[in-house]
Amino acid sequence: MQNFVHRNPVKIRFGRGQIAHLAQEVPPGARVLMTYGGGSIRANGVYDQVLQALEGFEVLTFGGIEPNPRYPTLMRAVELARAEQVDFLLAVGGGSVLDGTKFIAAAIPFEGDPWTICSEQAPIRSAVPLGAVLTLPATGSEMNRAGVVSRDDTRQKLAFFSELLFPRFSILDPETTFSLPPRQVGNGIVDGFTHVMEQYLTYPVGALLQDRMAEAILQTLIEVGPQTLADPTDYEARASFMWCCTVALQGLVGVGVPQDWSTHAIGHELTVLHGLDHGQTLAVILPAVMEAQREGKRAKLLQYAERVLGIRDGSDDERIDAAIAGTRSFFESVGVPTRLSAYGLSGDPSEEVVRKLIARGVLPLGERDDLDAARIGALVSAAC
Amino acid sequence: MQNFVHRNPVKIRFGRGQIAHLAQEVPPGARVLMTYGGGSIRANGVYDQVLQALEGFEVLTFGGIEPNPRYPTLMRAVELARAEQVDFLLAVGGGSVLDGTKFIAAAIPFEGDPWTICSEQAPIRSAVPLGAVLTLPATGSEMNRAGVVSRDDTRQKLAFFSELLFPRFSILDPETTFSLPPRQVGNGIVDGFTHVMEQYLTYPVGALLQDRMAEAILQTLIEVGPQTLADPTDYEARASFMWCCTVALQGLVGVGVPQDWSTHAIGHELTVLHGLDHGQTLAVILPAVMEAQREGKRAKLLQYAERVLGIRDGSDDERIDAAIAGTRSFFESVGVPTRLSAYGLSGDPSEEVVRKLIARGVLPLGERDDLDAARIGALVSAAC
Repeated sequence: MQNFVHRNPVKIRFGRGQIAHLAQEVPPGARVLMTYGGGSIRANGVYDQVLQALEGFEVLTFGGIEPNPRYPTLMRAVELARAEQVDFLLAVGGGSVLDGTKFIAAAIPFEGDPWTICSEQAPIRSAVPLGAVLTLPATGSEMNRAGVVSRDDTRQKLAFFSELLFPRFSILDPETTFSLPPRQVGNGIVDGFTHVMEQYLTYPVGALLQDRMAEAILQTLIEVGPQTLADPTDYEARASFMWCCTVALQGLVGVGVPQDWSTHAIGHELTVLHGLDHGQTLAVILPAVMEAQREGKRAKLLQYAERVLGIRDGSDDERIDAAIAGTRSFFESVGVPTRLSAYGLSGDPSEEVVRKLIARGVLPLGERDDLDAARIGALVSAAC
Repeated sequence: MQNFVHRNPVKIRFGRGQIAHLAQEVPPGARVLMTYGGGSIRANGVYDQVLQALEGFEVLTFGGIEPNPRYPTLMRAVELARAEQVDFLLAVGGGSVLDGTKFIAAAIPFEGDPWTICSEQAPIRSAVPLGAVLTLPATGSEMNRAGVVSRDDTRQKLAFFSELLFPRFSILDPETTFSLPPRQVGNGIVDGFTHVMEQYLTYPVGALLQDRMAEAILQTLIEVGPQTLADPTDYEARASFMWCCTVALQGLVGVGVPQDWSTHAIGHELTVLHGLDHGQTLAVILPAVMEAQREGKRAKLLQYAERVLGIRDGSDDERIDAAIAGTRSFFESVGVPTRLSAYGLSGDPSEEVVRKLIARGVLPLGERDDLDAARIGALVSAAC
């Protein structure tokens, strides 16, 4: 096991009816900016539930935060928050609203160009406190200190991190997710699953508990994923799916182990270039990375095959083939295709993906820094 | 899954050489009271490591905190801390030192009789901040908000809880545990294992991830327990054992599920009455509770048998018998006998145990409140 530092102070309120406790969690007397996305929370009643729970507080609202939240949109919220002297942010929505709100929280007091928070990892010295009401299980943003923001003019999708950006609290009521379209649920399942894989599928370092906890989440997602798609109002399945996505990226799975994150890095470029959903890019790239890294990840691929998928027959290579095929089948069983061709891409985007990764200066990728431009190009081509 | 609230802000520094980072974690300029136990940290060098890391801080020391820390001892530390206007406590040792230091932290600013913190769960409105250097994996106190304190004159061993008693940080260096006697290591393994069982072995509520995370810890302890006893300087085995004990009681295993804690409640009385080590009482009582509750815990006993112990053959009752026998075998394989007779008790202590539990007003026990005085007496008798 590698040395590690772990801290996660986020308070979670989980379950039916928890939004009603909002007033206990928001600091007394706070001037609140409630941020949200495209309006689905108006349709499903969450908007009204939140405002009702915050009766007595001064609440401003800012809607229209996009999937893959855009820098200009977020900067409009920053201007509003500065002008109105907001002192608490409440993100109501999915990972994009949460990520965007983390950026807003950091940008409000930031001196200088806020984009450098993403482009140069400029240090965040203060942030407006925030809380969240999660309505889309997927990203884990509700219980971590990270966010990802996109910019159309420069075609960038970049992450940022700060201890100051942990939500003070996140409220997770599975019932708020009953009305999600199947496409978003499928994407969420793939996202949670891939977050675990990026922390687990590397090489063994004797972190026995972390491995088994990762396997616990993977097994649970495989169990509940198809169930929760088949019956969106099955509370128990939806609750387990939701909690899996949160635990996947709250830290304990990844402490003391090498991590990869190449699937996310490559996937982000496919979203920027071709507009694929985040989950769709992961479903396409993860199996391709598994195939490309079958030597480097051999021991863990075999462990995953046996413990998560129950594959015990055949040679090592046959079991690895079966594990990759099993991963594809699982993603497809939750409605997310695993080939680029399924998303209507006509050509091979490998060259432009590689060009953008080179421009970002993030190569090589992989837990051993062994995924260079040539190997990434080849694996993206293979994913077509 | 039941509704839940979860929050755990403890910062963990895990691994070799982490004690050297103490000065980054203790508040600048703090006047520190370092608390410790019987002196083993002097023998193994941890005492010197800590003082060296705290060079530049004003550090007072208070040694002699006993296993099952005693109220009068802790109150002497409270007097010292008050007189010396200490503003940070650093617990260096195992669970008893940590639990005792949490009590000291709460008692220093407490108005009124501090014993009421335990005897009446008197509200803790402030506490001196504390940190920890853990040298004995077992109780999980390094990453939770609970403590247990004992009193000889009234023959009591009582727990207390407060959000204010989370350590600000805990440093876990597996190398500091290499010199532990096997008896303490065996007790620690049983303690960590039983903490998970008290949260897991109840009845299913659809908390699929929590179940699998509990099973992950149980499986890991079964894997590394005998290894770490056989070779105390095997860093990897010791690190996994240490991390299992911490995760066992930091909260995530027990969120949203019914919990039991009858084994601990009964065990505490055996420690008070007959001086058995905490781990020894758990090794004796847990199998007896499993047997007594084989109907109420049937579904989970079968799940535990299959997933943790790999028992798949035989009728339901045969598999439950095998699971109870397997639990005994595991405890005995780490050097902790599972019958009271092995500890030199001549008579049957069931009557006095029941009398004390009645006096404490904690009956009935069990996740369904169905362990009454008669059933507890019978199971303690059966444990002789």
